[in-house]
Amino acid sequence: MTQGIADAPGTSKSGLDPHRLLPADPASRALALDLYNSVKDLPIVSPHGHTDPRWYAENEAFPDPAQLIIVPDHYVSRMLYSQGIDLGALGLPRVDGGWTESDSRKIWRIFAENFHLFRATPSRMWLEHSFQEVFGWTKRLSAETADESYDHIADCLTRPEFRPRALFERFNIEAIATTESPLDDLKWHRRIRDSGWTGRVVTAYRPDSVVDPEFEGFQDNIEKFGELTGENTASWQGYLNAHRARRAYFKSFGATSSDHGHPTARTEDLSAAQADELFQKALKGSCSPQEADAFRGHMLTEMARMSLEDGLVLQIHPGSHRNHSKAIMQSFGRDKGFDIPTQTNYVDALKPLLDAVGLEKNLSIILFTLDETAYTRELAPLAGVYPVLKLGPAWWYYDSPEGMRRFREMTTETAGFYNTVGFNDDTRAFCSIPARHDVARRVDSAYLASLVTSGRLDEDEAFEVAHDLTYRLVKQAYRL
Amino acid sequence: MTQGIADAPGTSKSGLDPHRLLPADPASRALALDLYNSVKDLPIVSPHGHTDPRWYAENEAFPDPAQLIIVPDHYVSRMLYSQGIDLGALGLPRVDGGWTESDSRKIWRIFAENFHLFRATPSRMWLEHSFQEVFGWTKRLSAETADESYDHIADCLTRPEFRPRALFERFNIEAIATTESPLDDLKWHRRIRDSGWTGRVVTAYRPDSVVDPEFEGFQDNIEKFGELTGENTASWQGYLNAHRARRAYFKSFGATSSDHGHPTARTEDLSAAQADELFQKALKGSCSPQEADAFRGHMLTEMARMSLEDGLVLQIHPGSHRNHSKAIMQSFGRDKGFDIPTQTNYVDALKPLLDAVGLEKNLSIILFTLDETAYTRELAPLAGVYPVLKLGPAWWYYDSPEGMRRFREMTTETAGFYNTVGFNDDTRAFCSIPARHDVARRVDSAYLASLVTSGRLDEDEAFEVAHDLTYRLVKQAYRL
Amino acid sequence: MTQGIADAPGTSKSGLDPHRLLPADPASRALALDLYNSVKDLPIVSPHGHTDPRWYAENEAFPDPAQLIIVPDHYVSRMLYSQGIDLGALGLPRVDGGWTESDSRKIWRIFAENFHLFRATPSRMWLEHSFQEVFGWTKRLSAETADESYDHIADCLTRPEFRPRALFERFNIEAIATTESPLDDLKWHRRIRDSGWTGRVVTAYRPDSVVDPEFEGFQDNIEKFGELTGENTASWQGYLNAHRARRAYFKSFGATSSDHGHPTARTEDLSAAQADELFQKALKGSCSPQEADAFRGHMLTEMARMSLEDGLVLQIHPGSHRNHSKAIMQSFGRDKGFDIPTQTNYVDALKPLLDAVGLEKNLSIILFTLDETAYTRELAPLAGVYPVLKLGPAWWYYDSPEGMRRFREMTTETAGFYNTVGFNDDTRAFCSIPARHDVARRVDSAYLASLVTSGRLDEDEAFEVAHDLTYRLVKQAYRL
Repeated sequence: MTQGIADAPGTSKSGLDPHRLLPADPASRALALDLYNSVKDLPIVSPHGHTDPRWYAENEAFPDPAQLIIVPDHYVSRMLYSQGIDLGALGLPRVDGGWTESDSRKIWRIFAENFHLFRATPSRMWLEHSFQEVFGWTKRLSAETADESYDHIADCLTRPEFRPRALFERFNIEAIATTESPLDDLKWHRRIRDSGWTGRVVTAYRPDSVVDPEFEGFQDNIEKFGELTGENTASWQGYLNAHRARRAYFKSFGATSSDHGHPTARTEDLSAAQADELFQKALKGSCSPQEADAFRGHMLTEMARMSLEDGLVLQIHPGSHRNHSKAIMQSFGRDKGFDIPTQTNYVDALKPLLDAVGLEKNLSIILFTLDETAYTRELAPLAGVYPVLKLGPAWWYYDSPEGMRRFREMTTETAGFYNTVGFNDDTRAFCSIPARHDVARRVDSAYLASLVTSGRLDEDEAFEVAHDLTYRLVKQAYRL
Repeated sequence: MTQGIADAPGTSKSGLDPHRLLPADPASRALALDLYNSVKDLPIVSPHGHTDPRWYAENEAFPDPAQLIIVPDHYVSRMLYSQGIDLGALGLPRVDGGWTESDSRKIWRIFAENFHLFRATPSRMWLEHSFQEVFGWTKRLSAETADESYDHIADCLTRPEFRPRALFERFNIEAIATTESPLDDLKWHRRIRDSGWTGRVVTAYRPDSVVDPEFEGFQDNIEKFGELTGENTASWQGYLNAHRARRAYFKSFGATSSDHGHPTARTEDLSAAQADELFQKALKGSCSPQEADAFRGHMLTEMARMSLEDGLVLQIHPGSHRNHSKAIMQSFGRDKGFDIPTQTNYVDALKPLLDAVGLEKNLSIILFTLDETAYTRELAPLAGVYPVLKLGPAWWYYDSPEGMRRFREMTTETAGFYNTVGFNDDTRAFCSIPARHDVARRVDSAYLASLVTSGRLDEDEAFEVAHDLTYRLVKQAYRL
Repeated sequence: MTQGIADAPGTSKSGLDPHRLLPADPASRALALDLYNSVKDLPIVSPHGHTDPRWYAENEAFPDPAQLIIVPDHYVSRMLYSQGIDLGALGLPRVDGGWTESDSRKIWRIFAENFHLFRATPSRMWLEHSFQEVFGWTKRLSAETADESYDHIADCLTRPEFRPRALFERFNIEAIATTESPLDDLKWHRRIRDSGWTGRVVTAYRPDSVVDPEFEGFQDNIEKFGELTGENTASWQGYLNAHRARRAYFKSFGATSSDHGHPTARTEDLSAAQADELFQKALKGSCSPQEADAFRGHMLTEMARMSLEDGLVLQIHPGSHRNHSKAIMQSFGRDKGFDIPTQTNYVDALKPLLDAVGLEKNLSIILFTLDETAYTRELAPLAGVYPVLKLGPAWWYYDSPEGMRRFREMTTETAGFYNTVGFNDDTRAFCSIPARHDVARRVDSAYLASLVTSGRLDEDEAFEVAHDLTYRLVKQAYRL
């Protein structure tokens, strides 16, 4: 066991509570702390996320605190926006290139003045963790400490030990996945590989732009897809071959998974003729919304079949009504915090896929949800019986202490631990990565301790499971 | 800080547990108690409810214990009815004027004999709080104590300090809102104002009878609406002007909000021509159910636009299948405890309204729900990004310790505290008002204490938030 | 009070935690233990389950550990299958009679090697309880202890005190219900009755095979139904009379309830002419899926009307997508762990039934759900007002500590305790019966203790309610 927190009580005195997120009752808390100490220093395996491979390729300094911490993190900007602060005042770029705040210190001050809005949110916890553990700044952010904190972090960022690769190593990241489109040339991944740096950064195959007939520029994308692969993507078989080729190319850059962010969990298992007919309509831009949905649904089954051939793990992230505000989409573009969950049905939606490949032993499909009502009712029962299915961790809005706790309480009794896959940070906020994994390790330790103190698990088993949830399951599930 | 409970341990010995609803673990309990003591004596601000303005206008004695406590409270009568006790035996008036029990002591005895049915319900807690704190009676209600308690309370009611205004002052109510139809002449509110009494009783604009084509007597209501306002309510513009006039009239009696109790959260943003067409159909009574629903949905957007002009806060209370039993509706009328929640979709339903006015900074729309599955999935994500949206507190069936706790656990992480609006008691049971606010203050104190002991909030912040949740947010959100 | 656990601390030292499932904080735990000790030795009343009446009739020894514990329990086999272990390797019989493992020791070894998969599941708790309390074996199951445990249990099974009737008596079962089709001749029940054995085993009327037009062999079943009853089941009235006759026959074998496992909670209240028309279509096999659903829905109302005549309690178990995998259904048949819950609407679905008979005082309808989102939103509000409705306990996937806790937390505040009906084990795993009732008694005791320590219930009341939930309510609700 590593040197534990209990042995160094003074280190966090003025900042984070070293016992945060552990149970309140003394017996459970002591065991939870032991469990946490047994896993807190394990390497981070981050199999699904959205950091920029260019960071690791170029290894340039991050520009400044606002550009690093506020502008790219829609958890931060959405909360400020909900209380009447303009996105432009936070420096978010406009689609039309119009004015946006460029003075990062000003942006930071707005953030600091409104830091109370984040009370009891996971953002607050991630932010304070990174302020303290990454940058060594332990005061509370406020109007008074705005400039001091800005200067402190800005100064850090000028130093070599705060460059992306140095942080990657300090964060103890054993492997991290980024997410790219099939149309991406993976040049940053190539640069990383060619650089001789030993950090393990892999890509993941995210084909929305070429499987969703409603994606902007779908027809052009398919053409480019053909050019990149040398396949005739005007034909159904050529199109499938292009996927095969591109998946192989992604695998050559370490990819072990594909990822699919459809509006629903709908799947289809069409005949080749039916699929081809929809594909031809999609190429002509004449799919109805229903047909587009059916095509996306069928492509999940095709992707699953390719996974049987090439071993990529298939991730399904359904149920988000993305870019809900038309006006924000027009002025600031995609992914600005307006992705709102919707009810998601899995039982009927997944049946075509499951009837096609659900009993395979060499296929792994990881299901995520933004509709937590599906945990006990649908997802745990499905993952608790179909060999291909595993449950991804609590995702967006649920990637929080309460969300993670409910995930365990609502899935474990039916699906057990071994139909789950460890933790995903799913973030583009690089400095929050250790914080997020720390939260997950604490919440899992707390849950395991409560199982032991309530007589549902033996203590030696809890230590083994803590290790499994932190490290072993994610490597196994993602084949990393 | 006021003199706390901990300083006067003997006062409640034989009655209510002074530590009720606080956490079980000693550390959290001590802090929760400090938090509770810091807010327990703050004035009550009750921005949404259904007390009768006539009480405050006439200031007559309440008739007797049964007429005060049992007959008007459908939480009480529904539980007794569910176990086979006739509503007539409880003194509820019949639509046809037929027999109902008029002996209040007999009614009280039935209630007392069946008091065990309320074990662990919020009604039990509200009732015992009002028995003890309002009437000074601390025994447990039962067949044995039925007459004693009846006599005790009946005796109280004859005394001047139990008249409505005296109780209002003793309850430390800073402001209370009642709810009236646009067709109401607000004469009781006028009498209150003219009386010189300083208690602040305001009205709220509840236009169901003139915006819902399916409301009983809709056509007559619209005609009366025209007479009251001098507008030609046979025309779409005249109808809208009548709303403007009546809202202004309500504002002159202190209204700061409107309230809308539609079956669903559906909104529409129709063109004037489309709206007019539906309105003309509604006037002829020829709307299909779909058209009636669309018209109601469009009127929410019209009301929001008027709120932009006149500043009334807009409250949406959707998702109740009201008066579910046809037979009870026919024999005893509306609001007899047969309002059953239904699944409510907000993400799609609110989109037309939000595309129209969702990004405004000077508009406040408060969303309620009877479908708690929407808290994490839809409501917190929506309120956590749209500037116009705030989350109303846990409502009906959720206005309970467990319901309030889940509300905080399921909304805070995504929407924070500052997209919520404090507490609503939403009651017509006058004597339960202090009890309900007390429960809310205790549950919030318990929640805040648990955040501190789990390292998610600093202690000084918890005291500030406790004050915000009890007092500041409700005044700000309702502009009171 | 019986001799409590606290008085005999050594008995379970190396096995089950005697305080399992009780609260962590010392005050609540001590009270919970007192409550549990006050009910733990009460007789088991099992009003709904699937044990085989043949066991009690023949009273033969159970064959071996695997055939007793693994093969019939789909909670066990589904978890193993989800991790890639073939159902054939677990000895489950194939529809086509093809190979399946017949070496029970081999099956047991696979189970033991994979016992970690059950960590923190209710199956683990039931299994360990039965290993220890039924068979006196207290080690942890694993590859190492596989043979030892097999030999130990196999040896027990050869002894007279492990025959079904001896176990029944040792389990302190006061009454147990099995479930039979109207087409069953109840010969095992007759043998039990004729045997002179005093164990109370009653049947329950489960008419799916003759009320569901989509059931395999529906037309043949209706014909057989006519033969058994001497009624002309080709006519609507004859068909209803056949039900009446068969219900009376079931009552003569102790039945006090009927049970209905429809895909949805849909009810209808058709005219006799409409019902007859659907019935004639069903006889011809020409119902559309919608018509079949309507017919099933109408039959619930007919069954309720018959219950008014004959007093059988009506149970509704809706919302399961049964036999979800086509391939498993084809190779291994029904009920192999592929029953997946679906969203269930009760508010609209039950309205026709409730408008027909919902206000009756001499009718009892027990509602179950696999969609826990309906607890607070629909089921507790409905049961909290309609006199005919009672809430069945947490069912499948929810018959677990977390599921039971949520059931109480989400239903009690609105429906109280007295609109619930105690516990159902609903099992075909005979040896798990004491374990399941023990879990329910512990969870209820923990819940009641937490109500007392949080000031929501008085201590003396908690003891009374504990007894009600364990014993009195089930006997009253099921008229046993």
